[in-house]
Amino acid sequence: MSKPTETERCIESLIAVFQKYSGKDGKSCTLSKTEFLSFMNTELAAFTKNQKDPGVLDRMMKKLDLNSDGQLDFQEFLNLIGGLAIACHDSFLKASQKCI
Amino acid sequence: MSKPTETERCIESLIAVFQKYSGKDGKSCTLSKTEFLSFMNTELAAFTKNQKDPGVLDRMMKKLDLNSDGQLDFQEFLNLIGGLAIACHDSFLKASQKCI
Repeated sequence: MSKPTETERCIESLIAVFQKYSGKDGKSCTLSKTEFLSFMNTELAAFTKNQKDPGVLDRMMKKLDLNSDGQLDFQEFLNLIGGLAIACHDSFLKASQKCI
Repeated sequence: MSKPTETERCIESLIAVFQKYSGKDGKSCTLSKTEFLSFMNTELAAFTKNQKDPGVLDRMMKKLDLNSDGQLDFQEFLNLIGGLAIACHDSFLKASQKCI
């Protein structure tokens, strides 16, 4: 097999990261609240530690949990990654004054 | 700065890949049809070359282009990556007989 492309590597990484954290407790294919917090405080610590409001992660979990089952499935997890990517992308565009 | 986590690297990569292909022609912050085909045939060639139906990329572009402006913006591009990630994730789960 040839070397994966950057995009393929990314898709694999997102699946691997989700499986790593969702496998920590309980149902192995969803993120519980504890697993979500563990993911946010480890993988996205740079984002999390800049939040002054201690309730921000609670509200994020509630907002991401579209079917309100107290768990994040892979689709709900991807919405989180997508939302962060869009926020980063928008701030790059603003900084570079392109497409505004 | 400390080393980025796998998730942060992924978010950066998705932005970089989108910017690389969207900057090739015309509007620099969206993927034209030509740029979309270039992305699919380069970054996701393993997927593309397995499609026997020559119209599949045309139909994908139409389906992803939610606002029908003939361009894919970053949100529409992320829906493509998300859709592929979910398809891969589902087939891993099926293969491992977990969460079915």
